Amino acid sequence: MKKYVIIVAGGKGLRMGSDLPKQFLPMGDKPVLMHTLEVFRRYDETLQIIVVLPREQQDFWKQLCQKHSFAVEHTLADGGETRFHSVKNGLALVQGPGLVGVHDGVRPFVSVEVIRRCYDLAKVQKAVIPVVDVVETLRHLTDTGSETVSRNDYKLVQTPQVFDVELLKQAYAQEFTPFFTDDASVVEAMGMPVYLAEGNRENIKITTPFDLKVGSALL
Amino acid sequence: MKKYVIIVAGGKGLRMGSDLPKQFLPMGDKPVLMHTLEVFRRYDETLQIIVVLPREQQDFWKQLCQKHSFAVEHTLADGGETRFHSVKNGLALVQGPGLVGVHDGVRPFVSVEVIRRCYDLAKVQKAVIPVVDVVETLRHLTDTGSETVSRNDYKLVQTPQVFDVELLKQAYAQEFTPFFTDDASVVEAMGMPVYLAEGNRENIKITTPFDLKVGSALL
Repeated sequence: MKKYVIIVAGGKGLRMGSDLPKQFLPMGDKPVLMHTLEVFRRYDETLQIIVVLPREQQDFWKQLCQKHSFAVEHTLADGGETRFHSVKNGLALVQGPGLVGVHDGVRPFVSVEVIRRCYDLAKVQKAVIPVVDVVETLRHLTDTGSETVSRNDYKLVQTPQVFDVELLKQAYAQEFTPFFTDDASVVEAMGMPVYLAEGNRENIKITTPFDLKVGSALL
Repeated sequence: MKKYVIIVAGGKGLRMGSDLPKQFLPMGDKPVLMHTLEVFRRYDETLQIIVVLPREQQDFWKQLCQKHSFAVEHTLADGGETRFHSVKNGLALVQGPGLVGVHDGVRPFVSVEVIRRCYDLAKVQKAVIPVVDVVETLRHLTDTGSETVSRNDYKLVQTPQVFDVELLKQAYAQEFTPFFTDDASVVEAMGMPVYLAEGNRENIKITTPFDLKVGSALL
């Protein structure tokens, strides 16, 4: 069965207080995005990797790859106006049948085990997302104030979200709405259920200087 | 106005996969709990610090303090069966009027700024808790599966939770129920609203080896 991953790296870097988009920030000996690609390559030598990058960053990325002698084979697709449009551009390079994962470029700490779990389950379940427990007390904001809710009734969603290729293509043929916050929500808008798999807690998104500090420590 | 903080350190250490309760685990040059006390002392030289520890750990703690020449003055109270009972034991050593904070012993990364904000606001608001945004997609588990909810409608709750002394004493005079997950929920059970203040994202709870790695890096 053919397997793909679309790695979305659309960051413009604004939240980092740095001119360098967050996917390019150095963590240990190389940019965050390279770490991410390497985990997927470790999962499967034959996995087709598609990296979605804003067009104006692609030359810079190629230079980085050269500078670091970065050898993980991948194809580039152009970033779009929103995450939805970026994934759609990546999906245009995917030929089914098979499985396609969608992963955040700034999540280099996903474990190979979680990647494998999601792809394996997707063979049967068609739509699988990794989730982890909420470890803090959770409050729900209401019109009149806020209330404690049971954190056991909630999960935090990570990536890779892995789908049957045809299913995800159908989902992304829908009209864009702002309610599409992740790929699961796009698939669910068609009335399809998604299956929850266990993620790994280290799989944080590197989006603030604090995360980068944590990430450098985790290496 | 008299100010107190009850620092609850009831951990038996089981979640860490270590025999040493998590509050005593070394982070940098000293145990986690010492770092926590030092932040509160930095906030205010006159703050009365009450540390709630299981009775069987108190001798060990005193030895640790001696070994590290730990000079932050504090009083000990006995840990109870649940967090509720531990806080109640600490509260018995508090004489109002004034303000009392309740803080997790394993949150050494609360900022002085957040502590100050919570105590300052509590002078007027009577019940203040620090919260931070949910940065991941959030799913709500339902009877039939799960659904994406808007993460903007939720907050993650941290400590110190700061209260008017009389208010918190009244709240803790109530009968214990398992719905008391934090001090805010105990106060709310009396029909009192709590005020949300902005927390700091670094203020993580050190409860797993992963957290300890992150914590050591943040020092």
